[in-house]
Amino acid sequence: MTLNFVHESMAQRVAFGSGRAAELLADEVRRLGGQRVMLIASDRDAALAGTLEAAIPVALRWDEVTQHVPRELADRARKGATEADIDVLVSVGGGSTVGLAKAIARTSGLPIVAVPTTYAGSEATWVWGETADGAKETGTDHAVLPRAVIYDSTLSTTLPLELSVASGLNALAHAVDGLWAPNADPINSRTALDGARALSKGLRGIVRDPSDLDARDECLYGTYLASVGFASAGSGMHHKICHVLGGTLNMPHAETHSVVLPYVLAYNTPGAPDQTTRLAEALSAGPDPAPADALAALNQLRADVDAPKALRDYGMSDDDIPAVLDRIVAAIPPSNPVPVTPERIDALLRAAIRGDAPTIEEDA
Amino acid sequence: MTLNFVHESMAQRVAFGSGRAAELLADEVRRLGGQRVMLIASDRDAALAGTLEAAIPVALRWDEVTQHVPRELADRARKGATEADIDVLVSVGGGSTVGLAKAIARTSGLPIVAVPTTYAGSEATWVWGETADGAKETGTDHAVLPRAVIYDSTLSTTLPLELSVASGLNALAHAVDGLWAPNADPINSRTALDGARALSKGLRGIVRDPSDLDARDECLYGTYLASVGFASAGSGMHHKICHVLGGTLNMPHAETHSVVLPYVLAYNTPGAPDQTTRLAEALSAGPDPAPADALAALNQLRADVDAPKALRDYGMSDDDIPAVLDRIVAAIPPSNPVPVTPERIDALLRAAIRGDAPTIEEDA
Repeated sequence: MTLNFVHESMAQRVAFGSGRAAELLADEVRRLGGQRVMLIASDRDAALAGTLEAAIPVALRWDEVTQHVPRELADRARKGATEADIDVLVSVGGGSTVGLAKAIARTSGLPIVAVPTTYAGSEATWVWGETADGAKETGTDHAVLPRAVIYDSTLSTTLPLELSVASGLNALAHAVDGLWAPNADPINSRTALDGARALSKGLRGIVRDPSDLDARDECLYGTYLASVGFASAGSGMHHKICHVLGGTLNMPHAETHSVVLPYVLAYNTPGAPDQTTRLAEALSAGPDPAPADALAALNQLRADVDAPKALRDYGMSDDDIPAVLDRIVAAIPPSNPVPVTPERIDALLRAAIRGDAPTIEEDA
Repeated sequence: MTLNFVHESMAQRVAFGSGRAAELLADEVRRLGGQRVMLIASDRDAALAGTLEAAIPVALRWDEVTQHVPRELADRARKGATEADIDVLVSVGGGSTVGLAKAIARTSGLPIVAVPTTYAGSEATWVWGETADGAKETGTDHAVLPRAVIYDSTLSTTLPLELSVASGLNALAHAVDGLWAPNADPINSRTALDGARALSKGLRGIVRDPSDLDARDECLYGTYLASVGFASAGSGMHHKICHVLGGTLNMPHAETHSVVLPYVLAYNTPGAPDQTTRLAEALSAGPDPAPADALAALNQLRADVDAPKALRDYGMSDDDIPAVLDRIVAAIPPSNPVPVTPERIDALLRAAIRGDAPTIEEDA
């Protein structure tokens, strides 16, 4: 193979320990010299936050968390951190919670310790996002990458199975979209594919038995690898579509990713034969005989875990397309392996709204 | 799988580009704001250093490089860097060259850009070593990890094939020893195994055709992954043995690693069944039918590339054992998967000196 790329590895500690979140969190806060912690957790995770609070020196408890990080919320949280003289941010929760911590870190430089309770994966990326005036702005900044991440498989057992599945498929989207993102390289592709492999196995495991902590460990491990790969590779077509749908139409994050992914995979398959062959292998750890291609493998996985199927189930209709189409087309990287036209994206969105079976157009 | 570990990823940029070393080096030095570079390269790499020198602002050219980094040399190089008001260290060469740069970085905190010409792999680790009074001291320090590494497959084409093979097997030793090192975890094991896979393929390729730049890319890629995994996992039994042989007996680095590796693999196989099964698979990308176990796969690879076979060919005899045995036994981590006794290490060394076929003692 001929290699021609620049890859940047980022500094981050990651700890796995089932049932050990409080102990591991105390260790990481101590390593960072934290004496005045801002503990961010939404009401949904209040009980958990309460048990973790005892392990660390909390100076400010913040429970207002909203999807897509509205700018005025971010500004208030920043003010709160400054006034309380915070030295370490701890986020306990899903993507919106760590997203708020990142908003504070972006302007303050404060270190984050993230304790994920979903498979959002944002804890392993340097991507931030904020929403204002109906549009989601996203960017990358070394300052927002959490310095440490603590994965405790017992923390997600209260998440309803349906949300676990949507969240896990959102994690899988990091792995898949990273394969053709602008900075894709052999190093982040192998990481992303190993993430896809673990998620494929773990998600099937938690559907079989939601109390299976080993399967949840596998999902967390896959989430982490998929996100590390994605953070390095950058956002591809899939994430650009979902960011616009989230920011403009306020669609639910995980479910939107979960529905859109197979349509993007079908769209890009003809232009990315090597990547999709390897993805098919990663997603096929289990079914016998192995599916014919990556789309078939993803569809098999989605059927096995009863994945969200159509954007209309989350409130989107054809009438919403004009508000997002141009933004989506403009946002998709020019390096996308298959050329992007408004007509084809319009067709993709219509199919995803209805939940029609995605199809690969070999001659596209 | 149940996960229980803390993994630390380190920040490093790595650039691959065949024939592009000068351009990539200029980029990295510029990123670091380098205006007074200390360019370290031994006489062997003088011609190459000359071509790279034109691309960067060199304030000090240093060509004295010795294996195992003698302390008095390190001290003189540190003094040179201080007197010349150096802001970036550039090492062009093999492990001894980057080793000297690390010695300077350890006390000065100066950033290193490494341009490897062998498969030593030291450029991707935070391990430093210095030799004084007949003993090699080693340690780890974030300050010595090169900030950027530039891999250009054209740079190793002047390295004699025999040295390329020894160097590549030294790189492979990073991958193998990382599987049972004290901080081995699933993340660094997968990286190390992918490194072993690439090295196994690449080394066979350069033996078939030493001018095959794609095979050399594969070797560099494998070297990098193996070393990243090793840096995270720490030194295991193999590296402890080789460091003592190098520091005490001044044995040649790459050849010593190359000879000792199968003996350590045979020793640890009964205690590391999962790791060695996966290693067998990684080393078997090529031969058909696949070898029965990792030791057979390594022996097959060593035969294919005509690897160094016996320590006596590099000057060691049974008479040298008393000077190293106790040091080796004391240095091997207690976490080694098979218990260590002076008697069994003595037997291992005697077999490695003679080049006897290594054997797996299942009931050891």
